[in-house]
Amino acid sequence: MAARTRNPDELVDLARGGDRSALARLLSLVEQGGDSARAVGRRTHQLGGSAYTVGITGAPGAGKSTLTNAMVSTLRAGGDRVGVLAIDPSSPFTGGAILGDRVRMGDHVLDEGVFIRSMATRGHLGGLALAAPEAVRVLDAAGYPWVILETVGVGQVEVEVVGTADTTVVVVNPGWGDSVQANKAGLMEIADVFVINKADRPGADSTRRDLEQMLDLSVHDHDDLGGHDVGGHDVSGHDVSAPDAGKQASWRPPVVSTVASTGAGVDELVAAIAAHRTHLETGDGLERRRHRRLDDELHRIIAERLRQRARALGQGEAFDRARELVVTRKLDPWSATDALLGETAD
Amino acid sequence: MAARTRNPDELVDLARGGDRSALARLLSLVEQGGDSARAVGRRTHQLGGSAYTVGITGAPGAGKSTLTNAMVSTLRAGGDRVGVLAIDPSSPFTGGAILGDRVRMGDHVLDEGVFIRSMATRGHLGGLALAAPEAVRVLDAAGYPWVILETVGVGQVEVEVVGTADTTVVVVNPGWGDSVQANKAGLMEIADVFVINKADRPGADSTRRDLEQMLDLSVHDHDDLGGHDVGGHDVSGHDVSAPDAGKQASWRPPVVSTVASTGAGVDELVAAIAAHRTHLETGDGLERRRHRRLDDELHRIIAERLRQRARALGQGEAFDRARELVVTRKLDPWSATDALLGETAD
Repeated sequence: MAARTRNPDELVDLARGGDRSALARLLSLVEQGGDSARAVGRRTHQLGGSAYTVGITGAPGAGKSTLTNAMVSTLRAGGDRVGVLAIDPSSPFTGGAILGDRVRMGDHVLDEGVFIRSMATRGHLGGLALAAPEAVRVLDAAGYPWVILETVGVGQVEVEVVGTADTTVVVVNPGWGDSVQANKAGLMEIADVFVINKADRPGADSTRRDLEQMLDLSVHDHDDLGGHDVGGHDVSGHDVSAPDAGKQASWRPPVVSTVASTGAGVDELVAAIAAHRTHLETGDGLERRRHRRLDDELHRIIAERLRQRARALGQGEAFDRARELVVTRKLDPWSATDALLGETAD
Repeated sequence: MAARTRNPDELVDLARGGDRSALARLLSLVEQGGDSARAVGRRTHQLGGSAYTVGITGAPGAGKSTLTNAMVSTLRAGGDRVGVLAIDPSSPFTGGAILGDRVRMGDHVLDEGVFIRSMATRGHLGGLALAAPEAVRVLDAAGYPWVILETVGVGQVEVEVVGTADTTVVVVNPGWGDSVQANKAGLMEIADVFVINKADRPGADSTRRDLEQMLDLSVHDHDDLGGHDVGGHDVSGHDVSAPDAGKQASWRPPVVSTVASTGAGVDELVAAIAAHRTHLETGDGLERRRHRRLDDELHRIIAERLRQRARALGQGEAFDRARELVVTRKLDPWSATDALLGETAD
């Protein structure tokens, strides 16, 4: 029953009716960027707004996929549908990664209430940081109240992507300090919940002490800022770290021990996520976090649109005319650029 | 006799009349960027166009300053005035770096025909890559037919800056292979002339063999492309490496041995630069190289202007209105951005 249409609005209607191949096609369109992605976005943005997003990140081998799988089981036991986006900037292929996605799906391959999908940057000029929120809106519009964003590694882009989730889970293993040393501060900053996975291994206790100690030292106010300050994407240059006036009780990230392969501790993890959600929803935390996330997205889109414009302006007839004006010394380079941009000189 | 005026046009007139403090002030204005820099640029661009630029780069400690000093002496013996811009992205201070510049001037501290100036990125949003060509135009307009761009190191920005010179000199020492391994390919690409400085040290012969061998292997056609392909600044995305139809005889970078501290070989270096200049001027090489340089500059200015616009668009009332439209689901993020940018949706 493959969806034959490529019309975005029709695909959205089909996906909302439960057509999984229409949903897959929508995600491919979003991944590819361009006009079709815009059309999908216009439609899904109107429809969505209720999905709760959970980001899962941690070093390669920490057991994120196994943990995600176990979490999906727990969430499914409650009846809710669950979408999973595996964010993999390094993946050479996407969309067609059917085998990989089937492997990922594990226990859920026959469950119509679970949709798992790998995403890479194919085509989308703004990269995963721009494609991911669009993909979330597609799943949201298609009726998935939970969307899990699982990263493959802890690279800059991946941390940015999961850092925009409503609740961000950072997965470590006993002895993690050595493996993710370089990124420790960044992970501390985005974590709403810590998981020590493979907690049956030696060193789990000292890892917990280590984490709690770091949490003692850090100021737990990123939650009250309505979002995560992940570097590199704020194009506006204005201060994004000014604390808000309307404070609420601060959130100290709990540390949950799990053995994902046996399912041990996974219920506690889901409970911790639910507690964080309640915390956010009790005050205006969730609203503020989503507004901050939207600001980040708008800043990224502005930057991307202007990069596109720079590429277009840097060639073609108008550019050649501007250059000619400079070569013949009728205009200096800045004035010629202003003319090209349709501005008056400042 | 300090120039009291800050009026750019008056300062340019004073500098053209030989007023060194007016010249210094003009370079400060250019370094600071902004409206005054634009006014300076509008005036000097009309006046200049005859200065020949020589870029000097190489690893720290290669003896670039000593070599520059010796070259200035040789050029001065011919009667021409010489300007020197020492490009130092890491320098914490500029303009006021009088002591440093006096030390740099060495033998030329009392020579009114020599102007030496350190430049850093203070204030100029586009950085040295944008400030340097403006500074060259100031010296050009002030009557300096030779401008030497000397870099402090071989960082990306510095290599970009000297790579835009009419003739680029790459300075190495015996045994250089070990010290600049990482950047060897980039230096090979921009070199019009190689200098083995401190050639009285052991290993000079093998260094020469090493260089000649690399030159045998490389294709010497960058000259026929009318410019250097230095990565990272071509915002247009179009192919900048397409060979031109109108070929001329290709230029193989000569390898000159010098001992800058004694002056040995410096005349040969100046002769090699002159030979390269003649090579460029014989065909349309110089014109094409300058056009390519101008294209690069225009691309950088376009990118900088659009970065400024992104910063402005990413905050303020219009941004708040756009966000409100998204929050209330009247517009999706891309359409809201288009509205903000004053475009129709694509």
